[in-house]
Amino acid sequence: MDRILSGDRPTGPLHLGHYFGTLQNRVRLQRAGAQLTLVVADYQVLTDTDTAARLGPAVDALVLDYLAAGVDPETTTIFAHSAVPALNQLLLPFLSLVSVAELERNPTVKDEIAHARRASVSGLMFTYPAHQAADILFGKATVVPVGQDQLPHLELTRTIARRFADRYGPVFPVPAALLSAAPLLLGTDGTKMSKSRGNAIPLGADADETARLIRSAKTDAGRHITYDPVARPEVSSLVLLAALCLDRDPHAVAADVGPGGAAGLKKLVTDAVNEYFAPLRARRAAYARDPGALRALLRDGNARATAVAEATLAEVKTAMNMHY
Amino acid sequence: MDRILSGDRPTGPLHLGHYFGTLQNRVRLQRAGAQLTLVVADYQVLTDTDTAARLGPAVDALVLDYLAAGVDPETTTIFAHSAVPALNQLLLPFLSLVSVAELERNPTVKDEIAHARRASVSGLMFTYPAHQAADILFGKATVVPVGQDQLPHLELTRTIARRFADRYGPVFPVPAALLSAAPLLLGTDGTKMSKSRGNAIPLGADADETARLIRSAKTDAGRHITYDPVARPEVSSLVLLAALCLDRDPHAVAADVGPGGAAGLKKLVTDAVNEYFAPLRARRAAYARDPGALRALLRDGNARATAVAEATLAEVKTAMNMHY
Repeated sequence: MDRILSGDRPTGPLHLGHYFGTLQNRVRLQRAGAQLTLVVADYQVLTDTDTAARLGPAVDALVLDYLAAGVDPETTTIFAHSAVPALNQLLLPFLSLVSVAELERNPTVKDEIAHARRASVSGLMFTYPAHQAADILFGKATVVPVGQDQLPHLELTRTIARRFADRYGPVFPVPAALLSAAPLLLGTDGTKMSKSRGNAIPLGADADETARLIRSAKTDAGRHITYDPVARPEVSSLVLLAALCLDRDPHAVAADVGPGGAAGLKKLVTDAVNEYFAPLRARRAAYARDPGALRALLRDGNARATAVAEATLAEVKTAMNMHY
Repeated sequence: MDRILSGDRPTGPLHLGHYFGTLQNRVRLQRAGAQLTLVVADYQVLTDTDTAARLGPAVDALVLDYLAAGVDPETTTIFAHSAVPALNQLLLPFLSLVSVAELERNPTVKDEIAHARRASVSGLMFTYPAHQAADILFGKATVVPVGQDQLPHLELTRTIARRFADRYGPVFPVPAALLSAAPLLLGTDGTKMSKSRGNAIPLGADADETARLIRSAKTDAGRHITYDPVARPEVSSLVLLAALCLDRDPHAVAADVGPGGAAGLKKLVTDAVNEYFAPLRARRAAYARDPGALRALLRDGNARATAVAEATLAEVKTAMNMHY
């Protein structure tokens, strides 16, 4: 049975791009019998901004989105990594297995260095790939779903697992990448859907808000609707969104709308999104009505992750002769 | 009441240079009523070499040396930082408060970069100043005894304490340096006493081994013994060692030996060392006869440190809004 580790930084509610990009796939894997663990990477939001004040609501929103998407808290463990000291301790032996040069080579770190001045990159951002290795390896994950751009991160985790085995003996499996091509959904302004751009349709939006957002979406001057992502990216993204919700081929969806134009397309997309997400939103709302139960569920996940992390840390310490 | 944090990396038995350099002073502070905590910095030996195989005996030797020196395990907490996950977790918020440039500026890290190729410096060595801040701040130490060369390390800890307060509120006192000038004891070959040079007189040596080591110590051609550390470093170091053991002025000690020459000096030093250290060595031997009790004592210290670290981590998480 595969043990799958995935997760997100709690920076705000997830949107439809996240859903069709990763959430849907995770729930599929869970339903296929994989043992799924989802990390709420709350320390890693400190890397960017002083989000401490908004952290609690952001964590709640993320957990709600997981549950809305169909994550089953009975079989899947959802936890915040700040609540699992034994996981975080793995950062220390892992840091001993990687060089400064390897940490610098990580694309996210490189990007940050390119955007910020190098001097101002925080130690936490710099060591982020090793912390991510702790998130992945504490539960001995065998599979990590990644996009193409995240492959180098996972490669460092694989390096750490191999080096630990070489130096101290086998404790960690070397996790495999499950490469998935996320459909590219554009936001309402025609650029990549992203919560930081304010162009996203949140997973938790209600039917009216969804209708309003889709009504405001950018289209083009073409009267007849076609599916042509290169020439007509905005219209094609709307077609794709409907197709994903309807589980149909986007060309067929476009043909159906055809002369209905942008107005017809937007009506179709709105109906498709609202129908597809109605049960998810109902589930989200039900959980949201009971914040105490939501927190209890997270605490239960934290406890389960702690038990796993403590067992792994004990193995690590035995391998390293650190029992005294 | 001062809370004092000190400690050592477990790299082997301590020697007389350590004793008169720091151990004696720590025990004085303990006896004066300070609340002393001693960290066995076992993760930080991974920075240098693959010492895992020898780690257990090295930790035992260090704890034995503490007890020999007069550390009272009832009032002083001795613990290994690998045994305290909540302490290690502090590394994460602390790393978010320092920049890569600040980590690079640390003299130990700079030295390492100068000696190794920069690329091969490990992530653990690179982040060592922030980990040291966790060792110091987890128990809210108010005072840290340091040598001149360690001042920059402590300065980064002080920076972290201040920045944490600025960003999240007051949790940590800003610890003060207790600067102490360690007497410079040379090894038997006339260079600085250091276990890695094989020129040290171990704290745990017996009377015969001590006599043998002092007999082999380098002196000079001068027949008459004087105390002149600049012109006669080897002879003066032996005089100083006797003076430290006898709690006398080194000039007076040298005058007493005078025409007795190197042989007379070595006899005096041997007797002084063996007399001074006899009760310490007896205490060391008594503890060494019961390895089970020694480990139980360390486990007790680990448990006490864990309770303190968990309380501090809970405060840190409250300050950072990380309770969910």
